[in-house]
Parts: sequence; structure tokens; C-alpha cells
Amino acid sequence: MKLLAGATAAVDHGGSLGRARALFPRAPQPFVDLSTGINPHSYPLFELPATALSRLPEAARAHELAEVAAHAYGAPSPANVVSAPGTQILLPRVASLIAPGKALVLGPTYAEHARAAAIAGHAVSEVDDFEALADADLAIVVNPNNPDGRVVAREKLLYMAERLRAKGGLLVVDEAFMDVGPRRESLTGDVGQGGIVVLRSFGKFFGLAGLRLGFALSDARTVERLETQFGPWAVAGPALEYGIRALADIAWQDEMRASLSAAAARLDALLARSDVAVAGGTTLYRYLHLPDAGGLFAALGERGILLRHFADRPHVLRAGLPGIEEEWQRLQSALAEWAVRRDDQAKEAM
Amino acid sequence: MKLLAGATAAVDHGGSLGRARALFPRAPQPFVDLSTGINPHSYPLFELPATALSRLPEAARAHELAEVAAHAYGAPSPANVVSAPGTQILLPRVASLIAPGKALVLGPTYAEHARAAAIAGHAVSEVDDFEALADADLAIVVNPNNPDGRVVAREKLLYMAERLRAKGGLLVVDEAFMDVGPRRESLTGDVGQGGIVVLRSFGKFFGLAGLRLGFALSDARTVERLETQFGPWAVAGPALEYGIRALADIAWQDEMRASLSAAAARLDALLARSDVAVAGGTTLYRYLHLPDAGGLFAALGERGILLRHFADRPHVLRAGLPGIEEEWQRLQSALAEWAVRRDDQAKEAM
Repeated sequence: MKLLAGATAAVDHGGSLGRARALFPRAPQPFVDLSTGINPHSYPLFELPATALSRLPEAARAHELAEVAAHAYGAPSPANVVSAPGTQILLPRVASLIAPGKALVLGPTYAEHARAAAIAGHAVSEVDDFEALADADLAIVVNPNNPDGRVVAREKLLYMAERLRAKGGLLVVDEAFMDVGPRRESLTGDVGQGGIVVLRSFGKFFGLAGLRLGFALSDARTVERLETQFGPWAVAGPALEYGIRALADIAWQDEMRASLSAAAARLDALLARSDVAVAGGTTLYRYLHLPDAGGLFAALGERGILLRHFADRPHVLRAGLPGIEEEWQRLQSALAEWAVRRDDQAKEAM
Repeated sequence: MKLLAGATAAVDHGGSLGRARALFPRAPQPFVDLSTGINPHSYPLFELPATALSRLPEAARAHELAEVAAHAYGAPSPANVVSAPGTQILLPRVASLIAPGKALVLGPTYAEHARAAAIAGHAVSEVDDFEALADADLAIVVNPNNPDGRVVAREKLLYMAERLRAKGGLLVVDEAFMDVGPRRESLTGDVGQGGIVVLRSFGKFFGLAGLRLGFALSDARTVERLETQFGPWAVAGPALEYGIRALADIAWQDEMRASLSAAAARLDALLARSDVAVAGGTTLYRYLHLPDAGGLFAALGERGILLRHFADRPHVLRAGLPGIEEEWQRLQSALAEWAVRRDDQAKEAM
């Protein structure tokens, strides 16, 4: 168990082109940004009514969003849905639902959870054994996990939720990537029983991260407590309009899931050609395990292709999906060049 | 001093067309919505780059927003600026900056302040005497005030901030309407000294309330504490882009101030013709005092014109500005009709 000291400090993330430019100043641009798990094929853009920008968001429209979100995510009812301007902003509020105590995060995982729990006053530790979460007042699981894609079965999660609830604790399951995960393991249908908060992210699967839209699904009383914190007009007009249209578009979602599966398989094949092992992930990002992860990160970065590396884990990388065909070609060439150089160096060393 | 019990309950607001339709089902539509203080002449809409929706907002762009906001609002530096998805969502976080104690709100005023302070655990009361705020741990002043337009002088506010700071207290000044207020009374230039949080709203003056963008200005340490609560990507891409462009456009702001002054004078003249006294306000809304406020509210409502009434104050109304000429004409006719009927009834009663 790793005690996380100074956990409220800012966290490093993928997705910053400014940082990429600073790191690889001579790289050809535009960058191929594979440093996030955001879908490069966003939900089709449409023209917003001017009132979506000019007027205060209507309560009726916000309720409509809760309705389509409940349906799309499989929550019991709209009364189980909190809509918020991004999942990120929900994290400290969710962690504050229970009095400061012991927070355990199943890790390694998305670092903002530990930060949010620390902000809420909890003593935060990371554990790598699921069963150890039973000791927590606040237990946090990312499912499927980011970056490695590990999935915890719904049954195990429900049993853990029951144990925590019995002592007044809370289980938070971040399903940011469950749109492409094994949805039978989702807890969205179980939130009514209490002691569970499920987080869902709109921007990743729908490729609209700039809109800032996220959801917390929970029992109705907890939903009310969270909504009180945000007050009226929590979700902006543009996010409301896109959220309502995209979440109701089940056909697009099904097609996108199929097309992301195909893209992930193509990426795996491409990586295999250069002997890079894919150790896990979801169809929105692949988790790579290799001896010299830093070398690959740098070689691709210099060619304007950004992966996500992790300061504390030198043997792993995360790779998102290329979008247009030109990005695939650039990745393929860069990987091939890197592999040749790597193999040459290995020969020289012999 | 009025003790506010049950202050965390939801608050009634203007700006809901759904509510208007329920209240006045036979009214001609579209409604002329004068129930808010939002500028009907919004900053010119422009096409957003697709990346503003698809990509995570860039940290560099967020910093740019803090820079133009500091300049536009007169804060010492970008390090004194927190950008947030609306002012509303800031309120409970600002109220939580100090430990639960005694919160005093200078009222009557915007009801969400009392609600936010109660959520943060404070015992909240409303006072009508500015000097009484000195007893508070958390004192809240809306300046200029909504709805009556009362202005507290900067000098008095600074002296109060000093007294509160001396005992570890905090003065919050909500300057949501200071863009059209007497800006010499603004505290934005004084936030560096500590013990002060100034709130500024983007959506009202720029007529873009649907974007959700608001600011807290304070000393750098307090800014850091607030930013920690919101985490990365607090402001959505569309709000970033509009905020940067509109806040930097000082020429538009100056012209808009002049044009709003002219519109407010026109509204006052129109009201005077029907013997409705304007008792205060700002150039974004007028504060009306009349014996039968409910009667005027209902008469205009039935004609599809919405004012803001206040359940607990039967003699006052707030009227925002009409936008296009057709709205002015509808208001003028409806007011004239109401005045004739009122005068007839008065004669009959004699």
C-alpha cells in the first residue's frame, strides 16, 4: 500500500499540445496526438441555436439531458443522474459525500482520484489488491481501468459496495471508458441501492472533451446532495444540446463501438509489426509494455507523434487511436523507423 | 436581522421559459423575456474551431483567458483570477474558504448567496445595515445590488474587509453587474491584499449566459485554493474562446455600456408614461416600486412579457431590457393597456 503524500499537487496529463511543443520543439506539426483516450472521431458537429449561448440553460432541457443519460447509461431513472460540467469537477464533490476518513484507490490509475480524495480531507492510499478496498471509508475503482484496461467484475464490485455501505462507506466506480468496456460489468443499474457513485464521461467516447460534460449516477438522495453543490445551470447550453442529441443516438453509439474495435485491432497489428507488446487497454487506448518505453516515447515525439508516458512507470506507455488515414501512415512510418534503429543498436551491442 | 432557515432549498429564478409557459399558458409567443438582467444584445457570435469542442481545453489558452480577464476587470495579475464554469458554481466553494461560522448577507439580494453559505455549513442571516456585516466571519455584498441597484462605496468595503481580515474573516463582493456599475467602486484592484473575493460574471454583460463563465478574483493563495477544487479543464472550449475574444474587446464593451444606458433611459421613460416609478437598478435591469406589482406582473405576463417578481416582496418588480424593436413595441402596448385598465378601475372605485 502506497501512502500518497502531497497528493493535492497538480497532476500531469496527456492532451496538451503546448507541453508537446515545449518537449519536441523540432517535431513536424501538426502533432498526431495519441496522448489521450479521447475518440478522434467525434460525434458529428451541428449548428447550435443562438439561444444555447445567449440564454440561461432551461431547467426543462437539463431534465431532458438527465432522461437521455439515464437511458443511455442504464441508470434506473433521471432522478439517479447528476449532470455536471465535466467529470473532473465532480471528483472532489463526490469524495466529500462522506466525512474525512480513509480513502483507498485501486491503482495504478487516473491520478486525479487520489488528488480529489485528498482535497476532501481523506487520508489517501493506493492499493493494488481489490480486496484491500474493504478497509476504506471511500473506495475508488476505475473500471475499465486507465491506463491498463483491467476490469473488475460487477459481482465483486457489488459485494464490495455492500461491505462498505454496511459501515457508512462509499464505493466510487469511474466508468469513464465503460462506453467501450464490457458493459455487463457496469454498475449503472445498481446505483439505486445506495452507497455507490458511478461516474460517466461524455467527452471521451463522443470525442467532445472540450464541451465539458460528465455525470454522476447514484441513489436519489445522493444525487440531490450533489446537485445542491452545483446549483442551477450547472451544464452549459452547448453541452446540453450535444449531450441530448448524442446520448439519444444509440445507432451512432453502436456503430462507433464497432468502428473503434476495428481501429484498436489495426493499431495492435501495427504495433506487433514493430514487436511492441500490447498488454491491455480499451478500444479507445492501448496499454503498451516494453523495456525502453522512454525511447519509443521520445522517438515518436520527435516525429510529431505523442503518446502518454508515466513519470513513475518507465516500462509502459498509453497510445490513443489515430484519426485520419494520414495519421495512421505517420505512425506506421515512425514506428518502423524506430524499430529498425532499435534492432540495429541491438545488433551492434552483440 | 432575518435568520434564514432551510436556506439550502432550491431558489426561484428568472429566465425560465418553461415556467413562464406554465404560468401564462394563453400568452402570445415568443415571450419577451425581461425576467433576467442578461444583456439582450449579446457579443457577436462567431464560428468556433472544431477543436474547441473536440479537444481538452489547453492550459495555455486557459492562462490567456486569465490574462485578458485580469486586464478587463482590473485585477492586479492573472494569478489573481480563477476562471470557472459560471459564477454560480463558485459560490459554495468561495463560502467554504473559511471554516463554518457566521455568514451575513447584505440583503435583500440574490438568494443564491445565502443558499451557498448554508451549504458550506455557515449559520446564515440577512442584514439590511452594512455596518452589521462586521459581526460576520463571512460577509457577502452584491455591488451594485440585484435587484435594487444599491451601491456600496469602495472605501466602506475596504474598511469592512480590513476589519473582517483582522479576525480571519472574508468579504465576498459579487460584482455580477459591475460592468455597468460605477466601476470606481469596484474592489477588483484590491484583491491582492487578502481577505477579499470579488466575483465577476461573464454571461450577463456579454449576453452569453448559456456559455457558463464566471470569475473569482482574490489573492494568489486563495486563487490556488479555489483552482484546486476545480481541477484542470474547468472552463469549456466554447467559453474559453468567447471569453478571450470578448473580454479583450474593450471597444465593444465601451460602446455597449453607452448603448445600455440609452436603452435603460428609454425603458424608464416608457414606464414613467404609465406612472410606474423606477426606484433603482442598473442599466441591465430596472427596479420598479408600485402598489400592485402582482397586477402588473400578471397583466404583462398574459401578454407574453415576463418581468421578475419576488414572492416575498409584493410591491417590487425587476424589468430587464427589451432587445429588438418589436419587443419594445409589445412592451409599450401592454403597459399602456394595463395603465388604462388600472386608471378605469381607480375611477370606478371613487
